[in-house]
Amino acid sequence: MRAEIISVGTELLLGEITDTNASFLASQLPMLGIDLYWISQVGDNRARLVEVLRCAWQRSDLILITGGLGPTEDDLTREAIAEMLGERLKIEPTLKREIEEIFAQRAIKMPISSIKQAALIPSANVIHNTQGTAPGWWVERDRRILVTMPGPPREVQPMWHKEILPRIRQRFSGAIIFSKTIKTFGLPEPAIEELVSSLLSSANPTLAVYAKADGIHLRLTAKSQSQEQAEGMIAPYETSVRSILSEYIWGTDDDVLETVVGHLLTEKGLSLAIMESCTGGLLATTITDASGASTYFKGGLVAYSNEAKIAYGVDARLISDYGAITEMAQAMAEAARLRLGADIGVSTTGVAGSDEMEGKPVAIVYIGIDDSRSKRAIKGNYPGDRVWMKRWVTTAALFELKKVLSALD
Amino acid sequence: MRAEIISVGTELLLGEITDTNASFLASQLPMLGIDLYWISQVGDNRARLVEVLRCAWQRSDLILITGGLGPTEDDLTREAIAEMLGERLKIEPTLKREIEEIFAQRAIKMPISSIKQAALIPSANVIHNTQGTAPGWWVERDRRILVTMPGPPREVQPMWHKEILPRIRQRFSGAIIFSKTIKTFGLPEPAIEELVSSLLSSANPTLAVYAKADGIHLRLTAKSQSQEQAEGMIAPYETSVRSILSEYIWGTDDDVLETVVGHLLTEKGLSLAIMESCTGGLLATTITDASGASTYFKGGLVAYSNEAKIAYGVDARLISDYGAITEMAQAMAEAARLRLGADIGVSTTGVAGSDEMEGKPVAIVYIGIDDSRSKRAIKGNYPGDRVWMKRWVTTAALFELKKVLSALD
Repeated sequence: MRAEIISVGTELLLGEITDTNASFLASQLPMLGIDLYWISQVGDNRARLVEVLRCAWQRSDLILITGGLGPTEDDLTREAIAEMLGERLKIEPTLKREIEEIFAQRAIKMPISSIKQAALIPSANVIHNTQGTAPGWWVERDRRILVTMPGPPREVQPMWHKEILPRIRQRFSGAIIFSKTIKTFGLPEPAIEELVSSLLSSANPTLAVYAKADGIHLRLTAKSQSQEQAEGMIAPYETSVRSILSEYIWGTDDDVLETVVGHLLTEKGLSLAIMESCTGGLLATTITDASGASTYFKGGLVAYSNEAKIAYGVDARLISDYGAITEMAQAMAEAARLRLGADIGVSTTGVAGSDEMEGKPVAIVYIGIDDSRSKRAIKGNYPGDRVWMKRWVTTAALFELKKVLSALD
Repeated sequence: MRAEIISVGTELLLGEITDTNASFLASQLPMLGIDLYWISQVGDNRARLVEVLRCAWQRSDLILITGGLGPTEDDLTREAIAEMLGERLKIEPTLKREIEEIFAQRAIKMPISSIKQAALIPSANVIHNTQGTAPGWWVERDRRILVTMPGPPREVQPMWHKEILPRIRQRFSGAIIFSKTIKTFGLPEPAIEELVSSLLSSANPTLAVYAKADGIHLRLTAKSQSQEQAEGMIAPYETSVRSILSEYIWGTDDDVLETVVGHLLTEKGLSLAIMESCTGGLLATTITDASGASTYFKGGLVAYSNEAKIAYGVDARLISDYGAITEMAQAMAEAARLRLGADIGVSTTGVAGSDEMEGKPVAIVYIGIDDSRSKRAIKGNYPGDRVWMKRWVTTAALFELKKVLSALD
């Protein structure tokens, strides 16, 4: 089973947009046990599109195409497939009526050009599009399957999940590939690799280590005949990873730190307030990206100046005393907690960006946490530019908060 | 001049990363007057890589390749090019010494595998890599040019700008394409298209309208023999666009709103403080993404609860009075300004996310601005999900602040 992805659109060749459809579709194939061999991008040019399709039809069993299904003259995917297969396009009356209904619902007059979206070739079946007027095609011929989808990712993804994935699953019942990702923070990649080195040589499941924006991820991947079997193969490896890296693990798969922290706060009925200096608002906005944050997040103070720290209730004497950065971080967390009537206060402070201290580029940052019973300050070194450092410290603060919340009874 | 881009790496075919190198390189070619016809992604597989290269060598004059230049066995771009061209790889002593020096500087022992990065074929010249150990290749043969670059974007982009772009410029002196982008906010795309409709039919320069995260962009593109000529062709069109859309324009080309606002504040010697409710910290973190923000940004208050608004100095009576949202926005802006001793206060308040008010999904937002001489509150409707709304209101707040700052004498 050799698969190929083709993305159609001149805007891809002009570099106006990045082809996220191809990476989305590519990420979906391993769990189906389908090997992807080729991805290509081609412009809205009929001759070149036909050439790419001919090549794909020769070398691949499954061809996934996005783009070129719009109503304008530039949209040539349907025409190119018809030419490549030597079939004729015909307007399908039911499809035409459906498209007319979509326009009627939107109270817009249907442009004449939209009729071409109702065209089919004999080998094609319609794939329903819940998000737009362009239906997809499912083409089967000569032991090959060719699937067309529209270009906009917000149309591609629902169409893939609802219509195409189930059909492909039904059709190909080969070995599947199943993955589980374990997310860690606090140890660098080489240290993690050394700790789990005995597991890295396993052939099935495999273990791979990736450095990501929110820490180091470990991905266990099993190839097997069924999902259950794959999960069973992965389980003992996951147990090993968990026992080796226990306190550094904060989540799995689709978890993000802000929702992990949000669930813990909700579960324990605790509220949160923050005072952030070097993260400049990124910690607050990350927390409020989690749905339901208003139930536990009281608010945040972005103390980007010393006046602000004092105005927010931090002892002015701490500010003039550069050695007292531990106390400063704790005082900021406490002031946020008290000022906003929250159960837990978190702070970030340090020197960001291109500033220097004693001739050295500095990114020494303290994260303060005050859970009303105890106060702590965690020191970290963060090299890199300002925007990167903001992100890293925000991740570290949420991770430290997660640890504190998990330990609370 | 037909160009082609090839991106090498199995991680692209697994959907683990999105190919931003291809869109970066694609975006660079129009201004050189080079037509890009093909982009493809291929895995770390020698046979398939050779096949893609053979095909490219037949159909294209300029082939740009990224990826597969690392030191491991998986990295096969050099080997595949040598095979495709029927040339032999040989270790180049100068190159070997240079790579050894990079390791010496980092005080790391050079792994034996890294020697292969010093390999060349007779048709290849070295392209210097300032960001890593893998040099690029500039291959010329049979009236074709083939260029290899490493995979990491942070190595590709400097190598392109410093080494490859100048050589390509020198080589191809055909017609160039030059673009200028004018950025607006406050009018929807169809309204802009209607206002500039008379300019949209122009063939050279062309005018195109794009909806982006920070508003509507208008791009003027001229095809000409020289940059000066192209600029001259664009100038009168830019004047027209500026006179039609004047108050909605906030920047050009690489401008972002936070630096436009930052420059205005610096120029006028004014400081800024904010109190944000529905944007949840995104306004503060966007402001602090601009380098130098600490000189004008005093701080921000993320008032995610009513207690927080009161604690920050907003009159409690305003909170219980739902009709007084205009006054609330103004009071928040004033409280931020006074509390943090700033010249200008900005606020955002409204109902975010999935909440409802009187049975309707609400996203009515007010932006408050207090410049110490006058107060205003600007109302806006923001449909869409919470994260999207946060972004849109943040953009609107910076745009409104930009208008106020521009009008100040």
